[in-house]
Amino acid sequence: MGAAGKAIFAQSGGPTAVINSSICGAIEEAKKHKEISAMYGSIHGILGVLHENMIDLNRETPRTISLLRQTPSSLLGSSRHKLREEDYDRILKVLAAHDIRYFFIAGGNDSMDTANRVFKLAREKGYELSVMGLPKTVDNDLPITDHCPGYGSVARWLALSVRDAGLDTEAIYTSDTIKVVETMGRNAGWITAATALARQQPDDAPHIILLPEIPFGRDKFLSDVERVYRKLGYALITCCEGLRDENGDYLTASQRSLDTDRFGHRQLGGVGETLCGIIADGLKIKARADKPGTIQRVSALLASPVDVEEAYATGAQAVRHAVEGKSGWMVTLEREPGEGYACKTGIVSLEEVANREKKMPREFIDAEGTGVTDAFLEYATPLIGGPLPQYARLEKHFVKKLL
Amino acid sequence: MGAAGKAIFAQSGGPTAVINSSICGAIEEAKKHKEISAMYGSIHGILGVLHENMIDLNRETPRTISLLRQTPSSLLGSSRHKLREEDYDRILKVLAAHDIRYFFIAGGNDSMDTANRVFKLAREKGYELSVMGLPKTVDNDLPITDHCPGYGSVARWLALSVRDAGLDTEAIYTSDTIKVVETMGRNAGWITAATALARQQPDDAPHIILLPEIPFGRDKFLSDVERVYRKLGYALITCCEGLRDENGDYLTASQRSLDTDRFGHRQLGGVGETLCGIIADGLKIKARADKPGTIQRVSALLASPVDVEEAYATGAQAVRHAVEGKSGWMVTLEREPGEGYACKTGIVSLEEVANREKKMPREFIDAEGTGVTDAFLEYATPLIGGPLPQYARLEKHFVKKLL
Repeated sequence: MGAAGKAIFAQSGGPTAVINSSICGAIEEAKKHKEISAMYGSIHGILGVLHENMIDLNRETPRTISLLRQTPSSLLGSSRHKLREEDYDRILKVLAAHDIRYFFIAGGNDSMDTANRVFKLAREKGYELSVMGLPKTVDNDLPITDHCPGYGSVARWLALSVRDAGLDTEAIYTSDTIKVVETMGRNAGWITAATALARQQPDDAPHIILLPEIPFGRDKFLSDVERVYRKLGYALITCCEGLRDENGDYLTASQRSLDTDRFGHRQLGGVGETLCGIIADGLKIKARADKPGTIQRVSALLASPVDVEEAYATGAQAVRHAVEGKSGWMVTLEREPGEGYACKTGIVSLEEVANREKKMPREFIDAEGTGVTDAFLEYATPLIGGPLPQYARLEKHFVKKLL
Repeated sequence: MGAAGKAIFAQSGGPTAVINSSICGAIEEAKKHKEISAMYGSIHGILGVLHENMIDLNRETPRTISLLRQTPSSLLGSSRHKLREEDYDRILKVLAAHDIRYFFIAGGNDSMDTANRVFKLAREKGYELSVMGLPKTVDNDLPITDHCPGYGSVARWLALSVRDAGLDTEAIYTSDTIKVVETMGRNAGWITAATALARQQPDDAPHIILLPEIPFGRDKFLSDVERVYRKLGYALITCCEGLRDENGDYLTASQRSLDTDRFGHRQLGGVGETLCGIIADGLKIKARADKPGTIQRVSALLASPVDVEEAYATGAQAVRHAVEGKSGWMVTLEREPGEGYACKTGIVSLEEVANREKKMPREFIDAEGTGVTDAFLEYATPLIGGPLPQYARLEKHFVKKLL
């Protein structure tokens, strides 16, 4: 059994469409357990504990808590603050001063490292504290867990949006020929790969997918674009913001330093714009870049229903484990074997996930390195929570020319 | 009564979420009228007629036609081709060769000019032809009509997305402080202004709205950003891609020519990135730009239901007018006076809308020039088809500090 005392909830790292659903699951579960005497929210991730900026979640209405399930972004506020060694002592002091015995943090691998340090310090100092991690990252790069809450929703957003953007390019290619859609994902290609879910038929967009796991080569890229262009008359390319060249340098880095020299602090638009430049230079074809940026990760209306439910479930499960007396673990999602999609929760020690990153395995990337395999599609399709809406597709019976 | 003969349907200019709904309305209405002996689709706008690339729409299934109502982009293909004088004779020849007596084109002011020229030439040559325009543009810049099909959907997409992106910035501002969202709109600010519909409370994003109708001034901009930043700790700015400076030059133009000198054909990321550079230089604050690009205009799932219906209605009405014998008109939307929102269709001569552009009237822009007025909100709110979904908003009762 866990100790009696207060619980604190924190959200960390980049916001998602469903991180509030995780916290909702945790809060609604915590209300059922008498060991948890009160619930605090830490404002702006771990900074809230560090600065004693905490709110009383028991004073929020049940209706507000329930609405968290469908509210995007991180309503407690997030942070990317890098803690110093001495901060951990301070954190433990604050937790002790408020008799906080349960510490829940939703976040990615950095946050799990923070959680793990708090866990180890508490144990070392003999302060009874249950520390539980809730997995959260659109990047889907946490190890062990099958996938991360947040990923299914960004994947659904991109599947829908790239499908629509592909139809847009197909319609207008007599003037706008090539489109590049830049997605998030600094080191792992999971988000970019999800754009493949847009494709309903072989010639549908995206036609080329550029992942950070595969080094970018200018000549191969131009020949790939030209091949699609010759076949279809247009092309839609999706690329990861963290695309790197053969030397492991970010594709935009060299250009950026040139730019910084010239214009001071201004940065380049990113890899999408850089690719448009490469296409214009190399093929003399006009290209345009769409960069949805943060919009892709926090869309409430386009969130995956599966993702919303799983996020809620991981939050609730973290609380159940904590009141059973567990500490130092992160809840995972484990896919059930067999036909059809089903996931149950599992757990993994924080030590095993802290600061570790899961990239796309090679078997999820096609032989060419510019697309995904059926294995990836089987993995990712259930996460977006159902098929894309049905669109009309004209058969196009051409009328005989008379002139 | 209109002549007996075939009808042709064309889509022109930038795709939208609802231009297929307009064509669906026209086709489904045309099926009811025996004057219309067959229905052709012109592939890639007027180019389809010019090159005799036409499909037989009667051979598409009723189910396919019906699905057009919920399919984004322009399924017949679009074009931005600028016609030469001699092309109009060729167009009339093709129409006559196929005994086409009804010519329907969905598009913006350029397309209405094309339609008007075809109409006048047919009259001059004594070829019996009914030419009707279907209003279509996300830019909402056609004159006379209250608004344009396509606008309500891009407005809804931006209201939803900027609201979510604003919550994202609010959550993460301890590391990502300022966000710029760049919207479409080359000359008129209607699209950018619609981002104001994201705001539920006075301090909600967007905090600054930059319209092309108001010349951009660097110093005023920096002081506006600084004021918001000092109050909230963060800021979200929305800007039009067609933003201009006091000399009437596009804000990105000078920077772009510098860039072209240096990097060949590569273009800058656009006005959003340019503003981020100005903020970084002027205020030493990190800013990031989201540029959803074409994604904003063709989202089927986030389309405004009011817009989908109105697009359908304008298409159907164009056919009814044509079979009554009218030619040389564009269907308009006329807002009914009084409480509540209702629109009926009207008509305007193609001559009056061809090549004319409706900018945001000054009374829709606030005195400062960086926001919209209540009059604009009253105008635009009904077009997105209902209130934004309800989100949780924490009351945030802070816990007393003990340390």
